[in-house]
Amino acid sequence: MFDVEAVRRDFPILSRKVNNRPLVYLDSGASAQKPQMVIDAITTAYSQEYSNVHRGLHYLSNLATDKYEAVRGTVQRFLNAGSEDEILFTSGTTEAINLIAYGWAMPRMQAGDEIILSVMEHHANIVPWHFLRERQGVKLVWVDIEADGSLDPARVLEAITPRTKLIAVSHMSNVLGTVVDIKTIAEGARAQGIPVLADGSQAAVHMPVDVQDLGVDFYPITGHKLYGPSGSGAIYVRAERQADMRPFLGGGDMIREVTRDTVTYNDPPHRFEAGTPGIVQQIGMGVALEYLMSLGMEHIAAHEKTLASYARERLNGLNWLNIQGDAPGKGGIFSFTMNNGAHAHDISTILDKQGVAVRAGQHCAGPLMEHLGISASCRASFAMYNTKAEVDALVEALEFCHELFG
Amino acid sequence: MFDVEAVRRDFPILSRKVNNRPLVYLDSGASAQKPQMVIDAITTAYSQEYSNVHRGLHYLSNLATDKYEAVRGTVQRFLNAGSEDEILFTSGTTEAINLIAYGWAMPRMQAGDEIILSVMEHHANIVPWHFLRERQGVKLVWVDIEADGSLDPARVLEAITPRTKLIAVSHMSNVLGTVVDIKTIAEGARAQGIPVLADGSQAAVHMPVDVQDLGVDFYPITGHKLYGPSGSGAIYVRAERQADMRPFLGGGDMIREVTRDTVTYNDPPHRFEAGTPGIVQQIGMGVALEYLMSLGMEHIAAHEKTLASYARERLNGLNWLNIQGDAPGKGGIFSFTMNNGAHAHDISTILDKQGVAVRAGQHCAGPLMEHLGISASCRASFAMYNTKAEVDALVEALEFCHELFG
Repeated sequence: MFDVEAVRRDFPILSRKVNNRPLVYLDSGASAQKPQMVIDAITTAYSQEYSNVHRGLHYLSNLATDKYEAVRGTVQRFLNAGSEDEILFTSGTTEAINLIAYGWAMPRMQAGDEIILSVMEHHANIVPWHFLRERQGVKLVWVDIEADGSLDPARVLEAITPRTKLIAVSHMSNVLGTVVDIKTIAEGARAQGIPVLADGSQAAVHMPVDVQDLGVDFYPITGHKLYGPSGSGAIYVRAERQADMRPFLGGGDMIREVTRDTVTYNDPPHRFEAGTPGIVQQIGMGVALEYLMSLGMEHIAAHEKTLASYARERLNGLNWLNIQGDAPGKGGIFSFTMNNGAHAHDISTILDKQGVAVRAGQHCAGPLMEHLGISASCRASFAMYNTKAEVDALVEALEFCHELFG
Repeated sequence: MFDVEAVRRDFPILSRKVNNRPLVYLDSGASAQKPQMVIDAITTAYSQEYSNVHRGLHYLSNLATDKYEAVRGTVQRFLNAGSEDEILFTSGTTEAINLIAYGWAMPRMQAGDEIILSVMEHHANIVPWHFLRERQGVKLVWVDIEADGSLDPARVLEAITPRTKLIAVSHMSNVLGTVVDIKTIAEGARAQGIPVLADGSQAAVHMPVDVQDLGVDFYPITGHKLYGPSGSGAIYVRAERQADMRPFLGGGDMIREVTRDTVTYNDPPHRFEAGTPGIVQQIGMGVALEYLMSLGMEHIAAHEKTLASYARERLNGLNWLNIQGDAPGKGGIFSFTMNNGAHAHDISTILDKQGVAVRAGQHCAGPLMEHLGISASCRASFAMYNTKAEVDALVEALEFCHELFG
């Protein structure tokens, strides 16, 4: 079904060494590595097929436009959106959520209106809403997680008041690996006419996603976490929400007519895509998504589930390690601290000497860190190309580190 | 000094054929082709050196961060900015000007305040200001060009009133090739305390630019026009203006601390760069700028001047061709219509059959088209890799086209 060794061979960087050790890359939650076919697509685009898109009629321009626009259909299939026109291209989730904050939320929210967030959101799904708080007096309503790191949909729905205008929650925590039951949240919210944004930055990498089945209004994905190029991304925006949105970035392509005194805007989705886009990045993202679909997201999910179970078991065996989050069905993201109080940065540095790349810090999740009562943690995040042997390498490196700190 | 044939060999796409003819790429004004070293840098970054930046402590993260952040210094040298911290990374000029519109202009402008624009601005330097007009009642004050397409700095300065809050003009027209005397404009504006944004999208590709000598406050450049990757770019923002700006895009990296109720922001320039950036694109842009500096912008300018003079002479010899813009010192951008009323799109399509890639349409310059009294034109835009033989190919293709339309 899923041949992890074959997949690994598709990723050239995975065969390199770091600090004279084979690279054990456990930082895919921050950004994933790229398969050769994505790199090749970029090379081909630039060396044989490059031009600006949309505005030309010459051969290369038509070719680049066709390849670029085809990615919209790829993303549509990847997310099972109802229409290509519900896919907007962005440079990533950060720009996508800002687009919703500026284009959809700001024009329609008043002082005292409320946005419901979970305490485990990534800063990309917090700071744009803080802008609404700072600038327009919108109230941020925070929903706590349970002791095991899970998010109870009932708690989210109970937070709804007559002033609630949006629910914005992550589909999968980038720190705890918690997978959130978005479908139940969206169902309850829809019954009360409240739109839902689910941040798909992590989830879409690890499981099949069907935005129609989830019932969400906004669902951003990040190309560079999906084995695609940096600076690529997209967001699903339900057609009726697009109709409610005002333009965000202004420039070429998103207009119909510009005069000295007037401006009229292009139809969606182009209305929300200004200027020369990330042409080659998006083409590369399309290749990455086709690759994922050819492997089968359900097979990827199955492989990662086995891997995560194994990692959980092995890491739970280290009784001096505190793992944050133990929700049922959590994905392959393990954040941890050590009993001996060793600083996450030091742990990360020592693991790196063993060739094991993990992240250390706040993981762009300030409120969650506060909730957990820690200032920083290490995070090992697994991807489809990781193996049980790499789990062992992590454990071994952690044991070495633990001994070192005594 | 400048060996155009050697330069051409650096660009793999230039040796390809289109429609069985050697490619004559005269659409660099829309987007330039990429040298092999930029393509190689992208390949190396993804296949050997990739990671997210800023937030990691492991080897690959440090490596990617170092390479990425080094580009700030490259852009600083390229534009002769006073400090690296005056360089903000963006995905291109469109995002850059929106950053200034949202981050600097919107919080400080009131209804009735004025922004001075020239009639030959690109939509990227118009639509963000239309947002201020639509949303805040700001007045757009338009300065006409002269009959030859030049922009008289005196006219711009005469448009200043006590309500003028910003002058935003292109350094080089993307339609007429006109080079604008930004220095005189900025000098006059500064004397009255008015900031100047000069859109460097075209100019920075064709001539040495010194933002300190120009005396501007904001100077965006576009990586993909500068022989760098799509989705790359930067803007020079004078330090004192950065202090006046509020954050634009919210997310990771641009914050210092995020809690449920508060957010504090990172120092500039990072305050204005949210989320995972276009890591590899910016690294590629750095390589492109180093390449340009190694060739010498003054040598590139000299080559293009000779080329533009030759093109001007040859195109002027076609008495059925109307060239828009004839300003002294204009660069290698030639927009034209035909006396026989042939549609620009048809001309472009016929030229394409001869292998000659030109653009047709409004060139993202609605107000200029209105001013010129035309609905569309063709545009041949030259770059450093173009040759006199390609000018001849253009002329030949135009003659064929002219005969065809009778």
